[in-house]
Amino acid sequence: MKQSELEIVRSLRNRFKLPENLGVGIGDDSAFLRAKKPVLLTTDLMIEGVHFDLSYTSFYHLGFKIVSVNVSDVYAMGGDFNGFLFSVGIPESVSDEDLIELFDGIEKALNYYNGYLLGGDLSRSEKVVLSGFAVGESEKPILRKGAEPGDSIFITASTGLSSAGLNLLRSFSIDEKNLIKTVKDFEDFKIYNEKFGVRVNEILERHLMPKARKPYKFAHMIKAMIDISDGILIDLYRLCEESRVGAEIYLDKIPIHPAVSKIAEYLKVDLIKLIISGGEDYELLVISAQESMTEFGLIPVGKIIKDYGIYLVDPIKGKIPAKREGWQHF
Amino acid sequence: MKQSELEIVRSLRNRFKLPENLGVGIGDDSAFLRAKKPVLLTTDLMIEGVHFDLSYTSFYHLGFKIVSVNVSDVYAMGGDFNGFLFSVGIPESVSDEDLIELFDGIEKALNYYNGYLLGGDLSRSEKVVLSGFAVGESEKPILRKGAEPGDSIFITASTGLSSAGLNLLRSFSIDEKNLIKTVKDFEDFKIYNEKFGVRVNEILERHLMPKARKPYKFAHMIKAMIDISDGILIDLYRLCEESRVGAEIYLDKIPIHPAVSKIAEYLKVDLIKLIISGGEDYELLVISAQESMTEFGLIPVGKIIKDYGIYLVDPIKGKIPAKREGWQHF
Repeated sequence: MKQSELEIVRSLRNRFKLPENLGVGIGDDSAFLRAKKPVLLTTDLMIEGVHFDLSYTSFYHLGFKIVSVNVSDVYAMGGDFNGFLFSVGIPESVSDEDLIELFDGIEKALNYYNGYLLGGDLSRSEKVVLSGFAVGESEKPILRKGAEPGDSIFITASTGLSSAGLNLLRSFSIDEKNLIKTVKDFEDFKIYNEKFGVRVNEILERHLMPKARKPYKFAHMIKAMIDISDGILIDLYRLCEESRVGAEIYLDKIPIHPAVSKIAEYLKVDLIKLIISGGEDYELLVISAQESMTEFGLIPVGKIIKDYGIYLVDPIKGKIPAKREGWQHF
Repeated sequence: MKQSELEIVRSLRNRFKLPENLGVGIGDDSAFLRAKKPVLLTTDLMIEGVHFDLSYTSFYHLGFKIVSVNVSDVYAMGGDFNGFLFSVGIPESVSDEDLIELFDGIEKALNYYNGYLLGGDLSRSEKVVLSGFAVGESEKPILRKGAEPGDSIFITASTGLSSAGLNLLRSFSIDEKNLIKTVKDFEDFKIYNEKFGVRVNEILERHLMPKARKPYKFAHMIKAMIDISDGILIDLYRLCEESRVGAEIYLDKIPIHPAVSKIAEYLKVDLIKLIISGGEDYELLVISAQESMTEFGLIPVGKIIKDYGIYLVDPIKGKIPAKREGWQHF
C-alpha cells in the first residue's frame, strides 16, 4: 500500500458520488441521508482466515460479497436498500491494485443493488477485515416473528450451492485457485461445467459472489422471513424461536441443484448436510399462509407446527427431530 | 469463550431492549428505526495492535471508547445520537467475563450518550476487532465545508491529553498497566495525581475512555466543524480542504493542560507536537464568525485565511507553514 489515507479517501469520493438531493456521502464526519421512510440498519463482518481464504478469493469477490451479505439482511426484512458504509482493515502486504479491485467489487455490487457508498473507515490490520453496514428503508418491516401453526415454509431456490462451491474451491490446486481469482463474471466461466457436466459455475459464483434475493412481488403475502446465511436448519430454528413455534421440513421437497449433488459425490461429502446445513446461500426462507406463493417461483419445503423444535420428515426414515446444526463462526 | 453465538445474542437482547415505539433492535435480520429526521451515519474501526494495546486497556475501556469515537462523528455534524450497531471479532482466548466487560463498557457509554444498541455481528478473529456504527439525526447537518476567510477557529478544550496519556501508559510497568485495567471510573483514580502533582487521571481517562463533545448550546453559531480525532493540524487541514480556505493557528493561544506539559517533560516528548498533532482527543474544532463563542467556553486559537495551507504563528519564530502532521493508522 503506497497511497495515504487522504489520497484513498479523495479517490473514493470522486468515484462514489452521492446525488445532492439524497444527502452527503463520503468525506465528512458522518454521512447524511434524507430517508423517506423508517430506516433499516444492519452490519456484517468478514475476517480473513475465518470467513474467507485469499488463496482462491480475489479482492473483487470480497468487495461484491461484503455488500451482498449486508443487503441480504435488508431484503430479509422486506426493505429497500439505499446505502452502504464500509470499514476495512488492510495489511501492508495488500497492494494498491488489490485495494482498487476491492472497491471495483463494491461498485459492481452497489450498481447491481442500486445503492450508494456513504462512508467508511480505513485502517491498518494484520489480517484483512471487512465490516459492512447497510442502510435500507421500509414502512413496515417483515420480522422473524409472525409464523403460525399451519403456515407453509418456502425457500426462494435450492440450497447448499455456496457450501458445495466452498468444498470444491478448497479441493483445487494452486493453479486452479489462482485462475478462479481472475474470474469477475461467473456467467461465462464454464471450464468446470464441461469437466463435471453440470453448472459448476453457479456454485462457485454463489460462494464467491453471492447475490441477495429481493422478495419483490410476494412481499405482501409474507408473514415472517429470514435470509439463509447459516443454513436452512439454523435459520429456520431462529425464525421459529422468534415466532414461538416449531417446524417440519420435508426432505424430499427440497430441490437439489445438479452441481451440488455432483460435487457432493465427487468430494464424498454428505449431500443432505450440504443442503440443510450449508451456509452462505443468501436465499430467503419465507413463511406464508398462502400456497399460491408457488406462482412466484417459491418452493414449499415444510410446515409450521405448534410444538417447539425442528423436525426432518424423510419418506423412508419418517419424522426425526433435527439437531441445531449449521455452521457458525463461533 | 464458552458461550455460543445464540446464547450471547439472547443475553444481549435482554440487556439492550429497544422501546417498542422506537422500532426493532437486536434479534432480527436488520434493526428498524423510526427516525423523525434525516439520518446521520458513521463508522469507526478499532483493531488490536493498531488502535489499542490490551496490556493496559480493559475490555470495559474498549466498549466505552468504541461508542465514543463513533458518537463524536455524529456530534461533529451537529446531530443527535440515537443508536449504535457493533460488530466484534474475538479470539478464542477472550473469556466470557471479558466479553461481558466489553458490553458493560458499551452500556455505560450508551447510557451516557442516551442511545440504544440496535444490532451487530459476532465473529471469531485472531486479533480483537471492534467495528462501531453510529446512527444519529439532524435536520440540517454542520459540515466541514462552510469556513470563510476572517472566521475564527475555536477548540472546545485543550488538546494533547489522549496522546500524553498514551505515552504515559506505554511507560508503565506491567503491574501499573494491570492496575489501570481495573479502573472503570477515572474521576476517583488519583494515585498518579499525587505522584506528579497534576491531574494525570484526566489524561489517562481521555485516552482510555474519551467522551465525545456535544455542541449543545452554540450549534446555531457554527459555520463548519470537525472532531479532533487525528490532531488539530490534520483535522484543520481536512476542514480547510473542504472549505477551500487556509488557516493560521496561534500557538500561544492553545491552552495547555498541566498534566500534558508535566508528562511531556517527564517522558521527554515534544510538547507542541502532543498538542497540535496528538490524536484521539475527540474535542471539536469549530469555525464561527462570532467572537461571542467564547461565552460558551470555546477557546479561539486561530483564523481562517484565503490562502491555502495551514500556518503556525509563534510569538518568537513568526509564521511558519505547517506540515500535514498528525497520526494516522495508514
